[in-house]
Amino acid sequence: MNTFGRYYSLTSFGESHCPAIGGVIDGMPAGFEVDFDALERFMARRRPGYNPGTARREDDRVEFLSGIYEGKTLGTPIGFIIRNQDARPGDYSSPLYRPNHADYTYDAKYGRRDPRGGGRASARETAVRCVAGALALQALAAKGIDISSTYSAPVAVEGDSRGALVTVVARGVPAGWGSPLADKLDAALAGALMGIPAVKAVGIGDGFAVARAYGSDQTDIFAHTPEFGIHTLANHSGGIQGGISNGAPIRIDVAFKPLATVPGREVPSVGPHGEEGILRMCGRHDGCAAPRALPVVEAVVACVLFDAALGARLDRW
Amino acid sequence: MNTFGRYYSLTSFGESHCPAIGGVIDGMPAGFEVDFDALERFMARRRPGYNPGTARREDDRVEFLSGIYEGKTLGTPIGFIIRNQDARPGDYSSPLYRPNHADYTYDAKYGRRDPRGGGRASARETAVRCVAGALALQALAAKGIDISSTYSAPVAVEGDSRGALVTVVARGVPAGWGSPLADKLDAALAGALMGIPAVKAVGIGDGFAVARAYGSDQTDIFAHTPEFGIHTLANHSGGIQGGISNGAPIRIDVAFKPLATVPGREVPSVGPHGEEGILRMCGRHDGCAAPRALPVVEAVVACVLFDAALGARLDRW
Amino acid sequence: MNTFGRYYSLTSFGESHCPAIGGVIDGMPAGFEVDFDALERFMARRRPGYNPGTARREDDRVEFLSGIYEGKTLGTPIGFIIRNQDARPGDYSSPLYRPNHADYTYDAKYGRRDPRGGGRASARETAVRCVAGALALQALAAKGIDISSTYSAPVAVEGDSRGALVTVVARGVPAGWGSPLADKLDAALAGALMGIPAVKAVGIGDGFAVARAYGSDQTDIFAHTPEFGIHTLANHSGGIQGGISNGAPIRIDVAFKPLATVPGREVPSVGPHGEEGILRMCGRHDGCAAPRALPVVEAVVACVLFDAALGARLDRW
Amino acid sequence: MNTFGRYYSLTSFGESHCPAIGGVIDGMPAGFEVDFDALERFMARRRPGYNPGTARREDDRVEFLSGIYEGKTLGTPIGFIIRNQDARPGDYSSPLYRPNHADYTYDAKYGRRDPRGGGRASARETAVRCVAGALALQALAAKGIDISSTYSAPVAVEGDSRGALVTVVARGVPAGWGSPLADKLDAALAGALMGIPAVKAVGIGDGFAVARAYGSDQTDIFAHTPEFGIHTLANHSGGIQGGISNGAPIRIDVAFKPLATVPGREVPSVGPHGEEGILRMCGRHDGCAAPRALPVVEAVVACVLFDAALGARLDRW
Repeated sequence: MNTFGRYYSLTSFGESHCPAIGGVIDGMPAGFEVDFDALERFMARRRPGYNPGTARREDDRVEFLSGIYEGKTLGTPIGFIIRNQDARPGDYSSPLYRPNHADYTYDAKYGRRDPRGGGRASARETAVRCVAGALALQALAAKGIDISSTYSAPVAVEGDSRGALVTVVARGVPAGWGSPLADKLDAALAGALMGIPAVKAVGIGDGFAVARAYGSDQTDIFAHTPEFGIHTLANHSGGIQGGISNGAPIRIDVAFKPLATVPGREVPSVGPHGEEGILRMCGRHDGCAAPRALPVVEAVVACVLFDAALGARLDRW
Repeated sequence: MNTFGRYYSLTSFGESHCPAIGGVIDGMPAGFEVDFDALERFMARRRPGYNPGTARREDDRVEFLSGIYEGKTLGTPIGFIIRNQDARPGDYSSPLYRPNHADYTYDAKYGRRDPRGGGRASARETAVRCVAGALALQALAAKGIDISSTYSAPVAVEGDSRGALVTVVARGVPAGWGSPLADKLDAALAGALMGIPAVKAVGIGDGFAVARAYGSDQTDIFAHTPEFGIHTLANHSGGIQGGISNGAPIRIDVAFKPLATVPGREVPSVGPHGEEGILRMCGRHDGCAAPRALPVVEAVVACVLFDAALGARLDRW
Repeated sequence: MNTFGRYYSLTSFGESHCPAIGGVIDGMPAGFEVDFDALERFMARRRPGYNPGTARREDDRVEFLSGIYEGKTLGTPIGFIIRNQDARPGDYSSPLYRPNHADYTYDAKYGRRDPRGGGRASARETAVRCVAGALALQALAAKGIDISSTYSAPVAVEGDSRGALVTVVARGVPAGWGSPLADKLDAALAGALMGIPAVKAVGIGDGFAVARAYGSDQTDIFAHTPEFGIHTLANHSGGIQGGISNGAPIRIDVAFKPLATVPGREVPSVGPHGEEGILRMCGRHDGCAAPRALPVVEAVVACVLFDAALGARLDRW
Repeated sequence: MNTFGRYYSLTSFGESHCPAIGGVIDGMPAGFEVDFDALERFMARRRPGYNPGTARREDDRVEFLSGIYEGKTLGTPIGFIIRNQDARPGDYSSPLYRPNHADYTYDAKYGRRDPRGGGRASARETAVRCVAGALALQALAAKGIDISSTYSAPVAVEGDSRGALVTVVARGVPAGWGSPLADKLDAALAGALMGIPAVKAVGIGDGFAVARAYGSDQTDIFAHTPEFGIHTLANHSGGIQGGISNGAPIRIDVAFKPLATVPGREVPSVGPHGEEGILRMCGRHDGCAAPRALPVVEAVVACVLFDAALGARLDRW
């Protein structure tokens, strides 16, 4: 329930205000040399209050506990933790359910929850996915695969939060990664990306635009040249056909909703027993999720692709 | 690799032109009474050439082999097959790769494939998912949950295929279904829906529109009434918050691309060894995937929701 | 719940008196040429009433439905069924629970069961595991690995059934197959073998004798020769150390209990509502499970080893 | 690969000489009150140098990081670590392979390993399984289920190590736990127990003795009384029939081999490149694994049974 991936797997744990969050990475092959500096730089990109050039190095420090010896992986599971610091549980003292958060649904499911902040549903947990993603990114880069992302968002309106569209592209993925049915590459990517907090839509290639398109405008003609081998002339498919990569860049759009918490705003709400009240939102929240979400999106895509890379070792007799 | 679901699982097999397709449903609790007539009517909706009122009853007949005794489930796995009939392998005799099909990617992955039709990538396989979905729909209906879908498509242009937008809604799902991280309900739905052939995008609730929205327009205020208990006044979230259902209708948009095959159209292409040629598309394909896709979408949503329903039995001590 | 294996997996279905039993083999790499004659000979060894030389070829015929094209695997799932013939449900008409069968435990678990014969608990199902095992045996044999088994049983006493000790040996397994913890090779073998009907004990290498031994008598000294490389001079470990194969023959003992049904014998028993009576056992049961169990043991071992063989492809960067 | 269990799962990590070992427990239902004192007492039983009455409380301290709030479980994953202390890597400086250890097989699998002690194969890791087992034991005890174990070993011979037979009994398990095929209760128990370091054989009920027995001596006659309901008069089956518990005590024998390391003993061996030498064993090893193994056996049995307890919630419609 908290484990992602079939061959390269991450088991994640932790709430926003417990002593530490962390995870176990299982399935990283033995003998891979980890670049810890690159990992730290990657982690810095999603850190709260991150300002390029003045990164506070002391935050979100990943403590690796096992599975790595003299800088190289052992093949055994890689356990790691990230201590929670700077917890301000007093920020979240109201019994009223915050709109568009998971307070109510966690209560409905479990009958109780950690009331200090977002608990397990907090975006804090994405740091764990970034660790597994950072290793996957390094492993993919060593095979010539590059993953990058950009975003666009509406102009800022004072005192409000904004949604954002993130576009992520993976270049260099060879043809043949993915699976015919339950682990289709596009299905795995869509599931993993939709699992990022605040994501409400995922599109591969031309995405939702295909719903209004005609077939004659959507054809990715195959061609062959000595330099590039078999390839498509267009890429409406976004690099995936039949759930399997075709060698073209994998292109995905991800829609992030505006952050539900707008500091200072007041809304009516109810508590666990139906009690009514006015909730004054507070906390130290960003106006737009996207800047910090980019490394999370890249991490998640990297985990799925590296999982597919390992799976492809099993395809042929 | 061909198994969907954690608690209510389907293992699927079969290519478009092998003797039979089929599957194994595992995890259906014991003692559920199957309505075979309703199942047959459901299967008829996705059948090629289906015309409401004149359904050819002899097609796509599901042969149940195990797990059901005297009309009720035993708790043991339900094996079933659907014989392939009316195969016309001659339709697909060209060695050239069909654009936007999985011919090339299967070759790239496996080094070989069944050249008769779409093989494993054929939409033929969706009949298997419909069987598991039909049972899940019945089980959910018995708990007061209803799943329905509609679609819109661009006006038909003669000699071309069209994309479509399918909207599926699940009503009656109680608050508390889903999981905090790897099996988030929206993530599971997105992954399962993106795995349907021709799907290129999935959005929950307001979907891609959230990327251009402000937070103040996206607030699902909580309220409480004696009749409805705790509920939201709006439903931008589409019934899922923090990966867990909140009791509001679950609303999902699914984008289907235009069918790649337009009978009679000619396109240049290449074969496995880079050989060039002109491919004249043929086959007995529909212009728009959506009408037959509706039951597939409903089936897939039902499988995911019933899986979550079973998982919810494990939540509390 | 009915799926074995992580990389080479079998999902099994079927009761003893339903229309057919069968399964789905997933994870067999593409391009493997199946020897159907060898498979049929292997299946014949576990058939009821099998007499070498006069095998009734029409029984237990495996009908392959998918995943194989022109004699070679496609990489896609291999679905197959075996029709149930010669069902005599009248043999099992008593409501009384048969001792040492699964009648009572299935009722306790599911609240109902198929009363015709052993249902899902019948040894009939082992035919399904033999199909997956037969393919695994062929795949392993192509890599120089041989699996064989023998048995010993007490002298027959007229009108009684007998237990048996089956010893299975796998030769040619290279060092390095297996896994450090949850999928240890000995653990996987023990679990799979204990899952065969009537098995009550499994020992690896010296097995239970180690409990009475001293360390100085149990040492497998390592040596090195140009011809054999690193190897052990003794094999108390039975070819597995730390859950991973060491290149020595893998040797396992498996204890089968006497068949619970002794035709003609009468025992007191009770029914679902506590009703008492005398149960006269009948049916067409063998006195000793071992002769027919040998191929089942070999099949199960082959499935586990082939699963480990595929897993070993993922070990190193 | 390092995850045990389907519903109540443990993902384990850590080598003997890395900063910490630990794990993630997933699937513990919400609202269970943990008895931390009882957990600590349980952990003390497997600690090196443990002497009842003078337990060094500072050792093997479990640091819980998540999933528990105000003493009760949240339903979210429970992450925990145990710091490695008192590491003496100098003890293991020889490049020669220790006989009957996993040095060679890990090298064969991964091409490298942590040479400081037993690494991932060390019995040190069993502390992690004991944490998950301690919680499972508490959860089972709350339902009236008790698990206990005893052992017998040959008389000690000075300067040698000894094997041991451990017998574990679970009382109070209701009829109906377990699964028909791949997750049979006896199969799950055998697999989990064989995965404990030094275990070479597992027997359920009469175990290996059944191989020499006749059916008429092995009959567990069913009876019914108002007080006990349906039950068996004998228990040759050891509480499990058809892979499912029958309500009788679950009785299992587990054979531990003598510890391979006898401090002070000298044996010939070879190193990774075939180099020969004399290995003088050292380390602070026990003569017999059994006393410290008892809590490990109980923990592993508890994890399997609690997993089955949760699975049983899904059996009936």
